[in-house]
Amino acid sequence: MKGLKGMRNRNSERSLPWATSVAFLCASCLAQAQAQDQLPSWNEGGVKQAIVDFVAQVSDEDGNDYVPPAERIAVFDNDGTLWCEQPTYGQVAFILDQIAKLASDHPEWKTEQPFQAVLEGDMEAVAASGRTGLLKLATAAQSGMTAEEFDSAVNEWARTAQHPRFHRLYTRCVYQPQLELLEYLKSKGFKTFIVSGGGVAFMRPWTAQVYGLPRERVVGSRMAAEYQVEGSKRVVLRQPRFDFVNDKEGKVVGIYQHIGLRPILAFGNSDGDFQMLEYTTGGTGARLGLIVHHTDGEREYAYDRDSRIGRLRQALDEADENGWVVVDMKRDWKQVFPE
Amino acid sequence: MKGLKGMRNRNSERSLPWATSVAFLCASCLAQAQAQDQLPSWNEGGVKQAIVDFVAQVSDEDGNDYVPPAERIAVFDNDGTLWCEQPTYGQVAFILDQIAKLASDHPEWKTEQPFQAVLEGDMEAVAASGRTGLLKLATAAQSGMTAEEFDSAVNEWARTAQHPRFHRLYTRCVYQPQLELLEYLKSKGFKTFIVSGGGVAFMRPWTAQVYGLPRERVVGSRMAAEYQVEGSKRVVLRQPRFDFVNDKEGKVVGIYQHIGLRPILAFGNSDGDFQMLEYTTGGTGARLGLIVHHTDGEREYAYDRDSRIGRLRQALDEADENGWVVVDMKRDWKQVFPE
Repeated sequence: MKGLKGMRNRNSERSLPWATSVAFLCASCLAQAQAQDQLPSWNEGGVKQAIVDFVAQVSDEDGNDYVPPAERIAVFDNDGTLWCEQPTYGQVAFILDQIAKLASDHPEWKTEQPFQAVLEGDMEAVAASGRTGLLKLATAAQSGMTAEEFDSAVNEWARTAQHPRFHRLYTRCVYQPQLELLEYLKSKGFKTFIVSGGGVAFMRPWTAQVYGLPRERVVGSRMAAEYQVEGSKRVVLRQPRFDFVNDKEGKVVGIYQHIGLRPILAFGNSDGDFQMLEYTTGGTGARLGLIVHHTDGEREYAYDRDSRIGRLRQALDEADENGWVVVDMKRDWKQVFPE
Repeated sequence: MKGLKGMRNRNSERSLPWATSVAFLCASCLAQAQAQDQLPSWNEGGVKQAIVDFVAQVSDEDGNDYVPPAERIAVFDNDGTLWCEQPTYGQVAFILDQIAKLASDHPEWKTEQPFQAVLEGDMEAVAASGRTGLLKLATAAQSGMTAEEFDSAVNEWARTAQHPRFHRLYTRCVYQPQLELLEYLKSKGFKTFIVSGGGVAFMRPWTAQVYGLPRERVVGSRMAAEYQVEGSKRVVLRQPRFDFVNDKEGKVVGIYQHIGLRPILAFGNSDGDFQMLEYTTGGTGARLGLIVHHTDGEREYAYDRDSRIGRLRQALDEADENGWVVVDMKRDWKQVFPE
């Protein structure tokens, strides 16, 4: 409102032609002020302005950079971009929960690593099992059940599982500024999608309620699935193998196969989003690439180039030359989580 | 309107309690008559009634079979269900067109089958090359270009290619009753998807304009794609191999991976849709399976169990026991194509 007041004062000191153009300016300022009210958890500054300006630019039917609504595709990474990914991915917490729940059907897990470590709560041993161990756990926890059974398991987790530090549901460890941004973009005719390295079947049960994004607006990694008919039962059975990994180059492929259009806005937070950002901003016309930089150890976590989870190195180093906007969580977000 | 008149006559002959309940009945009839007006190209009868009844049943918030809008998923096959698939699939016509267009870059095709046959217009020789030949053509015609280049080629075909018998654009050889049904379901809170054996990238460029279905509402077969960076160009390059065949069991898998929910309504026309129909109607609660039976050689084509294209045998034989509604094109459709 400061800017607006300044305009009015100037207006009274000027002659008519100036007054007219300033009146126009005021109308534009007012529209922007209103737009910015849709993003109350974003601090005023260059980052917020870049977002609002971009949206205005592609929405202006008389402008050179106008993009029809059907092509206003915006893609968001999930872990670390829309919700907290520390101290570990929500899906890893879900997988560990699942292993504990399924253990009674698998007595052999008591003496088989990395299952034994999970059941004994020995997180160091779990971590030591590395990528191979985690894949073993992910596969065991997320296959061998029907689509509906897996949906129910995820729903139960989403309804009950709490973040170890914030003592709130994981699904409430989403970023308030991003909820506002998703809503803002929707109100401006954008089509928003999640494009995540996480499992698509792990996200879909709760994205509608948490982000307002229906199931078909979620692109992610997939385990193989098979259709099976057993007597009168007709089910989709999740198979113990990965079908598609929606990360790095895979995100671009996932976007093409699922959405079929190059996005005009991409928002990520780690090097896993590099190619998605590069592909998005590599198109012709106005494009916007954004990166959440986790700089706020007090309200959330501070990590980047050396983090095991959500490592941000190449994308941060090359942000400037690519024209990507780096969102400094500490500086740019008035509030991190919803009240 | 016949039913309504009958009701009014009866009404005048009855005492007050009857009159009241009949007034309620009339209100319900009126609602139905209005609903049916949304389907003017469907002849009155059991099939149309089954559709309207099903929609009323799942939309009734007080009923046992109520389904919230987010779960009102309806899936439609494309070839032979939404548009004409005879004398050959639209996509085959596109592929042959593409081969002719790409031929100048491939002098070797002049003496290599089945390319030579296509270039010489020898359709018997093309047909004789069988499935292997067609796959060779499909691969050559639809790979080796960027996502955007392929989109343009499809758009050009969709804007210009004419059906050999009906002398109208292929994209105008869509079925008017189905356009009305898609719109009707949308107005009743359904989410409609195309689930086709055809290529997803072949359908997406024109489904919004022709069916009102945006790109992410199309599930289909896919060629592999890769992300490539060459200098300042950042592109998705279509690869000469199939990534996923969305047919038969594949349709169920495609539905799970892309939509993530079991549909409540499925509409097909051939045995390639059998599993999709079976999976859809195999869920709990109210379900509707529908099959277009091509019985109208005069206005369109008459074919079923022995057809090379769109063979309908098992699904027709087992329709009754599965409770699937068979739409007899000649009997049930007042009009086949849009004016």
